[in-house]
Amino acid sequence: MSVDTVIETLRGQLGDKVVVTDADAIAPWLTDWRGRWTGASKALLQPSTTQEVATIVKACNEAGVPLVAQGGNSSMVGGATPNPDGGSLLLSMRSMNNVRMLDAEAGTVVAEAGVILANLHDTALKRGLRFPLTLGAKGSATVGGLVSTNAGGTQVLRFGTMRGLTLGLEAVLPDGTIHDGLGGLKKDNRGPSLDQLLIGAEGTLGVVTAALLKLAPAPVARSTAFAGVKSPAAALRLLRRMTDLVEGFELLPHDSLEAAQRHMDVSSPLASKHDWYVLVEATQAKGQEDARALLERLLAYAMEDGLVEDAAIASNEAQSEAMWRIRDGLSDSEKQVYGLATQHDISVPVDAIPEFLKRVKSEIEREWPGSWVSGYGHLGDGNIHLHVRAMDRACEGWQESEGKEIGRRVHDLVTEAGGSISAEHGIGQMKRDELARLGEPARLTMLRALKAALDPKRIMNPGKLIP
Amino acid sequence: MSVDTVIETLRGQLGDKVVVTDADAIAPWLTDWRGRWTGASKALLQPSTTQEVATIVKACNEAGVPLVAQGGNSSMVGGATPNPDGGSLLLSMRSMNNVRMLDAEAGTVVAEAGVILANLHDTALKRGLRFPLTLGAKGSATVGGLVSTNAGGTQVLRFGTMRGLTLGLEAVLPDGTIHDGLGGLKKDNRGPSLDQLLIGAEGTLGVVTAALLKLAPAPVARSTAFAGVKSPAAALRLLRRMTDLVEGFELLPHDSLEAAQRHMDVSSPLASKHDWYVLVEATQAKGQEDARALLERLLAYAMEDGLVEDAAIASNEAQSEAMWRIRDGLSDSEKQVYGLATQHDISVPVDAIPEFLKRVKSEIEREWPGSWVSGYGHLGDGNIHLHVRAMDRACEGWQESEGKEIGRRVHDLVTEAGGSISAEHGIGQMKRDELARLGEPARLTMLRALKAALDPKRIMNPGKLIP
Repeated sequence: MSVDTVIETLRGQLGDKVVVTDADAIAPWLTDWRGRWTGASKALLQPSTTQEVATIVKACNEAGVPLVAQGGNSSMVGGATPNPDGGSLLLSMRSMNNVRMLDAEAGTVVAEAGVILANLHDTALKRGLRFPLTLGAKGSATVGGLVSTNAGGTQVLRFGTMRGLTLGLEAVLPDGTIHDGLGGLKKDNRGPSLDQLLIGAEGTLGVVTAALLKLAPAPVARSTAFAGVKSPAAALRLLRRMTDLVEGFELLPHDSLEAAQRHMDVSSPLASKHDWYVLVEATQAKGQEDARALLERLLAYAMEDGLVEDAAIASNEAQSEAMWRIRDGLSDSEKQVYGLATQHDISVPVDAIPEFLKRVKSEIEREWPGSWVSGYGHLGDGNIHLHVRAMDRACEGWQESEGKEIGRRVHDLVTEAGGSISAEHGIGQMKRDELARLGEPARLTMLRALKAALDPKRIMNPGKLIP
Repeated sequence: MSVDTVIETLRGQLGDKVVVTDADAIAPWLTDWRGRWTGASKALLQPSTTQEVATIVKACNEAGVPLVAQGGNSSMVGGATPNPDGGSLLLSMRSMNNVRMLDAEAGTVVAEAGVILANLHDTALKRGLRFPLTLGAKGSATVGGLVSTNAGGTQVLRFGTMRGLTLGLEAVLPDGTIHDGLGGLKKDNRGPSLDQLLIGAEGTLGVVTAALLKLAPAPVARSTAFAGVKSPAAALRLLRRMTDLVEGFELLPHDSLEAAQRHMDVSSPLASKHDWYVLVEATQAKGQEDARALLERLLAYAMEDGLVEDAAIASNEAQSEAMWRIRDGLSDSEKQVYGLATQHDISVPVDAIPEFLKRVKSEIEREWPGSWVSGYGHLGDGNIHLHVRAMDRACEGWQESEGKEIGRRVHDLVTEAGGSISAEHGIGQMKRDELARLGEPARLTMLRALKAALDPKRIMNPGKLIP
């Protein structure tokens, strides 16, 4: 059965509201938000119920027509952009945007795949709770995408990634069967968890339609500090003392701060200049220690021992927000100020970070003279956003030529350090070849076997992730 | 290639110490600890390194000879007993019993599959830490078995099951490939987690050889309380107030307490008699609120509101231990005092517990006149150990005849309540047919597909779990 026949069949079953073929309406969703990949699709399917998703998947499976599930279109790796051949259909989950249930006493919520993260934050807050995961794209990223990419963000240190925050999933499997794991069983030992298999699978093994998620008590106060440290090693020692006590611990080098200052018109929270900085955040729920007092105590202790050179604690919410604005704007600022860069979303074991940063900087700058390496990120979870700047050599096409060579070299070094070539953003289409090149044989074997077993017709997000 | 040829090949490669064919040495491991299932095996393989495990798996895979991995032989569902046909080989993981690494600063440990839980507790304690999972069989249960059955135990409320405590796994896949996931990456988004796939897979998708596990700071003090409550509903309301503050919350009915008193020569911590009791435990790490003060405050508040009828707080470690001895000895006591029972390891959503307990009691006692239903367990995680006692009708063979009918009826009721037919013990051979009968189609499809994909020759623990 052809793509056109499937479209007409589905239009008959689900109507014009769900099956959109107007090219102008489809176009905005065919290119990823950074404009790196553009695909083609003859239809945009917009189901608003799980049953409609199942109808769509079943029809596509029978016809062998691929489907690309998409949430907020905020993928960093082309994970939700259809292939350019036009052979697949775009499945937008944005119309499935109900919060089906919120149990304040139990601290759980069932959110459909299309619920936007910022809206989930608001919904929880109205009940005195919070969904403790946030990231830059919160205004567009959706629950389905967050689950499918095992999103992390800035609070992972305390609350974990989506893998830890997800108590159960509802999903449509590649054959159109509906899996209902929203029951919220805290203990269930009927074999391995199928929910876990869908988390981080980037829509290649099924379409997530809803998630049962953990909520935390809303903080009644937070306190944020910005401290100058000598090195990543000092920051790591500081982190060890703060584990379980703070929920944000971000490391950044001086040059990144400078970029933010130049581009965003923010000033450094510290009068003094340091090689590295950490941004630390503590929150306080009802009955817990005062967050500001906690940070004051921890930082005073660290300064005595020479781990921290200087520190500023925000004295109000506006100052806290100003500190986070620096962190949240780093990537964009660097681009505006220093021009093109290759950005690498990688992780290495926490202990290995200081040594890795040294090594990658010296190797890359030696092998590509004139390049400049900087890294920042959530130190506590081993996740570094590593940037290699082209400096004066930057020109159109550089990222695709020399930038790609640099990327491969970074990935070699990450792999040697026992790390991952994708810490946060997933594999998508961008890193699929690199995963095939560097993944351990056992991982590649299992990924391919899972795909063959669960989606033998390969209709689920083809060309992404699976090497 | 025949079983005998594989044995001789492996003997040549690994020697007599690893390949044991003396029937007397094999016999103790062919029957599960409760004496319910007896299997046969021509050899007991006892590797002490991952490489030896890989050699064994590779040879068995080539020859199509099945392997049954076994740890402490403490399965409750025949999960580690070979089939009686004698066609499979027993793979004992007990010789792989090294703790390879313990990082006190990071709070992590790498334990091999054969490390006995009690030994892991001791090792951690020597460094001021603890592995926060414990269960009755801690003196024999091993890390590999705990991972493969996603073990829970009494501290799940605060620390989660093995799924949450496992940061990475090393395993030998069915084709003999070694998967090394011990790197301890806190963030790794290279597709779904392969480690998660092996947790709870009962050795049907590969053999776990080592695990990177989370440790917690050792408590400096604990406080235990025993309280009388009117009903499971009251206990549930009490639990809601204690969530995140306590780490143990066990519910038991009066008759179970009575059984413990008669069999074990323990006395009730309370002078008064109540329909239900809860055993609550709080621990306190350095710098946290005094555990006894916490329990006193929570219980006083609950008594004011009528949630608790009477309560006793242990005033020393011996009294705490006496309270736990009651809980830990319940199963054995009931058997000794009341004779035969069918025991059901099930879970239902936490909210549904009070209603479920009422319904299952009335339905079962009505359908099987003279039977008596009791339930106890970790209320906080929805896990109930449900016992149906035969009373005067108990005789040899009852469990296998009427007991099985009762079991199926209990499973029907659990399924209707949105629960699981296995909360803790897994599926093994005991519940495989029930899983096939009651499992949701999506789950069954995925389990079968995973097995076919990863172990096409079906050499890994055949006859267990996979429906």
